[in-house]
Amino acid sequence: MVARAADALDALRAKRPRVHCITNTVAHTYTANLLLAAGAVPSMTIAPDEIAAFVAGADALVVNIGTLDETRRTAIGIAIDAATEAGIPWVLDPVFVDRSPGRATFGKALLAMRPSVLRLNPAEFAALSGLSAEADHLPGFARENQAVVALTGETDQVADAARCAAVANGHRWMARITAMGCAGAALVAAFAAVDEDPWHATVAALVALGVAAERGAVVSSGPGTLAVRLLDTLFDLDRKDLLEQAKVS
Amino acid sequence: MVARAADALDALRAKRPRVHCITNTVAHTYTANLLLAAGAVPSMTIAPDEIAAFVAGADALVVNIGTLDETRRTAIGIAIDAATEAGIPWVLDPVFVDRSPGRATFGKALLAMRPSVLRLNPAEFAALSGLSAEADHLPGFARENQAVVALTGETDQVADAARCAAVANGHRWMARITAMGCAGAALVAAFAAVDEDPWHATVAALVALGVAAERGAVVSSGPGTLAVRLLDTLFDLDRKDLLEQAKVS
Amino acid sequence: MVARAADALDALRAKRPRVHCITNTVAHTYTANLLLAAGAVPSMTIAPDEIAAFVAGADALVVNIGTLDETRRTAIGIAIDAATEAGIPWVLDPVFVDRSPGRATFGKALLAMRPSVLRLNPAEFAALSGLSAEADHLPGFARENQAVVALTGETDQVADAARCAAVANGHRWMARITAMGCAGAALVAAFAAVDEDPWHATVAALVALGVAAERGAVVSSGPGTLAVRLLDTLFDLDRKDLLEQAKVS
Repeated sequence: MVARAADALDALRAKRPRVHCITNTVAHTYTANLLLAAGAVPSMTIAPDEIAAFVAGADALVVNIGTLDETRRTAIGIAIDAATEAGIPWVLDPVFVDRSPGRATFGKALLAMRPSVLRLNPAEFAALSGLSAEADHLPGFARENQAVVALTGETDQVADAARCAAVANGHRWMARITAMGCAGAALVAAFAAVDEDPWHATVAALVALGVAAERGAVVSSGPGTLAVRLLDTLFDLDRKDLLEQAKVS
Repeated sequence: MVARAADALDALRAKRPRVHCITNTVAHTYTANLLLAAGAVPSMTIAPDEIAAFVAGADALVVNIGTLDETRRTAIGIAIDAATEAGIPWVLDPVFVDRSPGRATFGKALLAMRPSVLRLNPAEFAALSGLSAEADHLPGFARENQAVVALTGETDQVADAARCAAVANGHRWMARITAMGCAGAALVAAFAAVDEDPWHATVAALVALGVAAERGAVVSSGPGTLAVRLLDTLFDLDRKDLLEQAKVS
Repeated sequence: MVARAADALDALRAKRPRVHCITNTVAHTYTANLLLAAGAVPSMTIAPDEIAAFVAGADALVVNIGTLDETRRTAIGIAIDAATEAGIPWVLDPVFVDRSPGRATFGKALLAMRPSVLRLNPAEFAALSGLSAEADHLPGFARENQAVVALTGETDQVADAARCAAVANGHRWMARITAMGCAGAALVAAFAAVDEDPWHATVAALVALGVAAERGAVVSSGPGTLAVRLLDTLFDLDRKDLLEQAKVS
């Protein structure tokens, strides 16, 4: 599994996939920088009249519902249709779906549109599934929605209907950096563009992010510097780093 | 006063208040990171149909009128009503109210809605009050508007109708970091969520930010690194740092 | 030419020009920080009802068409009219004009409104001009559009109808930092506010940015730290640095 993650990292650097991001305004810049550091090429427009052209030229799509507004709602529908049409993978990040009823309804509707991967935290999982956020509940939910489910936290759980992996890489300061989860979801999309099995792609992305964070934390003094250093270590990351430092079970 | 600021810092770390931010797009990311570093939990949506739910679940609100648009105008009204209804403190940051007549009118209308704290710079104070930005003019203006007035600059002045404090912490590079004032206003909101006296809360927030900046500047080489290091030093800040380094009179 | 760039840098620090920026949400924060580090004063509103007042009070305008939407389209027209009326320079950055047909049409319409400077990358140049991105094609295109054309890449080419300069400063990591080009265009606007010859202003801005990047890279370990360090080195940059390190031919 880790060797496959290392192969995906190599493929990402070679292919430089385009990733179109519909994401919240808080996460825009960090998401773009994380994708660039990894080797992907981001685009971020949400204009309904041009998003289909952008998605059609992209290799993957990420849909994050933070700072949701009318334009984003419209753009999201068009973008998902364009991704489905083009046959490219898309990742759903249902940010704060636990905080407002309207957002929960919208999140469920998007899930019904069959994302390749659903990335969320325990509170968001509970709001969408009606289940508590235990690893045991993931495969059933993944099967039901025909999506890979990535439950991120201190240890990330990545499940599809048949497989489940736990990724223990990362650093506690990551929870104090805004948009780290959103940017991580975009990285999942980038890996999904180069590994056709979205479960493997998700594991690879979370391992790469976690190892980069661990390597960055060594030269950081808190969440501010870690956010910056992580971009450097992700940019420098190679397959040997993944093979040596991955904590996947 | 400084001991109370230290208590508020401890309370902030213990309570981890939710702070809902209506702020400009330039300030989004830094504001969120500053709140996270301090120990608060930010949310930033401005969608009119869900902002009431977000504010109702928050412990404080900050309203910044930068990059003002129709959606923000609508969201601001709903959010202030929700904050008033929930009885949580809210902070007004009337960015660039001196630059356009429409914004001045809107800023004055918001001030009439009784924010707990008004944070602004000298040009903005002059535009809103019709007075020159001298410390002597603050208590009368504070009394008239029943709000704490925080005039930020090289030395910050914090006044309500009866009390006035001068906070001399900080670093000159802060003026070269975008959104530092906006993020500071959000930090005031976070402290107002844990100290029920908004004058004390404002002093505490400005001392904490200023001390963190001074500690960050020691390991920085300019405004770029300071913006990053300040997040680390704020994350690490403890009551002893405040007690030793506060410059309040 | 380099002595004139050094004079422009001094003038920028002395005059502290206001630069109004219509730019994409990804670039907002970094653009503002870069302008502040250089000594300029940014403003970023795109609200149609107040942008004319902001532009009228500014010394230069930059129009970047990233994350284009209806509000931005409207704001751009008003802002360009206000800049023309006020007689201040404006810079056009036709981001991703190669990626969607609607954006290409809009980019061409803006070019017809006579920007002082057009900054773009090779793919965008090809989409706007119908020509391949060779230095030889720039003067003719500049003459036709009565604008300075700055084609940025490993070596930047800056041409007007009669003159052409190549700026070889910079660092390869800049291509991995989002909004570097957008922020660079805003810096061109800042220099155009203090040197009335837009060709000289453009050369000066690109040299200053490139030298700052080279100096920043020495103390960086990748694109993450470079983005931060570049703000420090730009803040510290003086005429001596430009005179010693400029690579202009």
